[in-house]
Amino acid sequence: MAVHDFFLHLLVILVTARVFAELATRLGSPSVIGELLAGVVLGPSLLGWLEPVQAIRLLAEIGIILLLFEVGLETDLVRLARTGVKSALLASGGFVFPFLLGYGVAVYLFDLPMLVSLFIGGTLTATSIGITVRVLADLGRQREREGQIVLGAAVLDDVLGVVLLALLYEFSTGGGINFGNAGKVTLFIAAFFVLAPIAAKLMSLIIQHFDKASEIPGMIPTMIVALVLFFAWLAHALGAPELLGGFAAGLALSRRFFLPLGAAMHGNADFAHRVEQQMKPIVHLFTPIFFVMVGLSMNLRAIAWSSPFIWAFSGTLLAAAVAGKMAGALLVREPGPVRAALGLAMVPRGEVGLIFAELGRSTGILDATVYAGMVIVIALTTLAPPFALKWFYRRYGSRIAVYSLQQEGGIGR
Amino acid sequence: MAVHDFFLHLLVILVTARVFAELATRLGSPSVIGELLAGVVLGPSLLGWLEPVQAIRLLAEIGIILLLFEVGLETDLVRLARTGVKSALLASGGFVFPFLLGYGVAVYLFDLPMLVSLFIGGTLTATSIGITVRVLADLGRQREREGQIVLGAAVLDDVLGVVLLALLYEFSTGGGINFGNAGKVTLFIAAFFVLAPIAAKLMSLIIQHFDKASEIPGMIPTMIVALVLFFAWLAHALGAPELLGGFAAGLALSRRFFLPLGAAMHGNADFAHRVEQQMKPIVHLFTPIFFVMVGLSMNLRAIAWSSPFIWAFSGTLLAAAVAGKMAGALLVREPGPVRAALGLAMVPRGEVGLIFAELGRSTGILDATVYAGMVIVIALTTLAPPFALKWFYRRYGSRIAVYSLQQEGGIGR
Repeated sequence: MAVHDFFLHLLVILVTARVFAELATRLGSPSVIGELLAGVVLGPSLLGWLEPVQAIRLLAEIGIILLLFEVGLETDLVRLARTGVKSALLASGGFVFPFLLGYGVAVYLFDLPMLVSLFIGGTLTATSIGITVRVLADLGRQREREGQIVLGAAVLDDVLGVVLLALLYEFSTGGGINFGNAGKVTLFIAAFFVLAPIAAKLMSLIIQHFDKASEIPGMIPTMIVALVLFFAWLAHALGAPELLGGFAAGLALSRRFFLPLGAAMHGNADFAHRVEQQMKPIVHLFTPIFFVMVGLSMNLRAIAWSSPFIWAFSGTLLAAAVAGKMAGALLVREPGPVRAALGLAMVPRGEVGLIFAELGRSTGILDATVYAGMVIVIALTTLAPPFALKWFYRRYGSRIAVYSLQQEGGIGR
Repeated sequence: MAVHDFFLHLLVILVTARVFAELATRLGSPSVIGELLAGVVLGPSLLGWLEPVQAIRLLAEIGIILLLFEVGLETDLVRLARTGVKSALLASGGFVFPFLLGYGVAVYLFDLPMLVSLFIGGTLTATSIGITVRVLADLGRQREREGQIVLGAAVLDDVLGVVLLALLYEFSTGGGINFGNAGKVTLFIAAFFVLAPIAAKLMSLIIQHFDKASEIPGMIPTMIVALVLFFAWLAHALGAPELLGGFAAGLALSRRFFLPLGAAMHGNADFAHRVEQQMKPIVHLFTPIFFVMVGLSMNLRAIAWSSPFIWAFSGTLLAAAVAGKMAGALLVREPGPVRAALGLAMVPRGEVGLIFAELGRSTGILDATVYAGMVIVIALTTLAPPFALKWFYRRYGSRIAVYSLQQEGGIGR
């Protein structure tokens, strides 16, 4: 690929992604939907201008591990510990029910193979932290009790989702499902999840040390990106997906991450702030490329729209996706309207769901039609909840507020 | 190239570049030399671990246009107007003499073809702004009169160098030297230089407008990078090298750039600051990749070190490179020691010189030996001046200070 062609490709992707993202938010839906659409428009589905060539695909891969790095970076372990039990219940319910429903629908209704069905179930598990945060913030509920519970649950089911992804990845690259091995892999991943952030934290302390002494600018962007790439590479070498490494590195560098030993934490706040400030532009540059690539990889023309399969498939799975999260909310002991609000807020899938679908596609497990169906389901789960929640809070908002006050013994937040 | 291989390559490049850059600065030489060395060590010259594969090469190309973007961003047109005539004289002398000397040496002493010799002459023209700034700052002379003159001259001969590069590029892609066409090309490039920053400025005002209105983060990194890519692509489409576009975009976004019409400049300082703050990490991430790539592209093993050619060639050109800049300083009406200091400070070549050499290599005009010779000369011109200037100022610093005071009528800065 010639340099100027590459530049043109990249700039068209960046500009189109931004324009569609802006339009999407003006219309009340999340920006990620706009970026997806940009890919659909530029790709074989509509204009056919761009193909997912390798150089751009590699940039998209950087984008996705950097996105998971940012998710890790914004994970607040302290807050997670505080909302505690309710978040954990909501997360487990919101993880298990959609997974079982999605898997069951795929296997029993549509007769799909087991591994395909596992991917479909997995795609429905992870709530999108980013979109949920945005929706709750728009409603002004982000700092309320139910907002805190939902945020904690979204973080937890992202973690569960990534672990499941690693398991499925092992199955798909290992050639099949081996439940005897699954326990070992889970243990392995759990060990990575505990050890990698600690290792990343220690490395970041080394970077911090040299950053103070260095006269050459650019220590943070180069070394933190290298750190993220290293853990992505390590995760892959250990048989987990690359993005697990990105998440672990982000967790290690988050402001509220604490080492078990509590060692050498002084003076850290400033460094964490600088890491955030300098890494954000890089993350923001690369991530849209990933979502455009997801859109580019979908060929909507190759799908048999006249066959009832795609309609029945995405319709049923959408129902499973919504019902699963609502069922998860039943595990939490709260009055009805609060439960409904919690369930609705958990509906948006997003980044992690798309990553699931993309991994399924690139390993050849999901065919073009199933892949397109999954992306459509993910898109719809993020499109509807903002409107549904707004309507719900207009109607039941006052009752939820009263419950919240009673719960807190009449003391305002 | 598999994703995890790509990640590994990239992280090895980033980490090695940083380690060698740090070592280089500890030893008193510029960081760029360390990054070059990192490429030499990792590449076919020494370890043979990495090859300049396409995906990394494309990242290096982004690095180089972003570097020129930063050079443009840091160009202070207002200050340039102030140091005025003396800088212009120093720049023209420091541009013409090394060019003629380099060209003459190549054609008459080494019997090289005309186009090759033009590239060799061109490589010697541009003073490295970055290295010169660093050296002057280390000596505490950056804000003194001679420091200001040198900085202005370094900026100007960078511009002249880039124009010459565009001319040679036209020659090399057009298949030969056509002096009848040269005037037209120069005019064309001059027009690009005047119009592109204005167009880029107008576009940046549009970006600024939407940045205020947008709720999605990441407007600046995505859209400014897209702007830089667009002008790089445009420059190429018009027959100039891509980096000219990067420079024009940087110039347009610099804090002290002014539109002829003076329109819509209010509230700009904050935006310019944010652009700088958010673009720097991105520039710092990509640029080392370029210099490592230069080192990777050099195969020192392929050079016949036993033949006298490479020694005579680089030795003579090094002499031409130093003598040319010293001769340039003679055009400025200053006392002897000040002239010598000006000349010495102009000696470091760097980024633009390396770009010249790399363009010559990638278009097939410079063979491996001549290329390696040029890179060695560039490296030596940046290695020696810091030490030479330190020694010079220890010996003649007080006399230069007295001249400066007399010049300014006894009033301190």
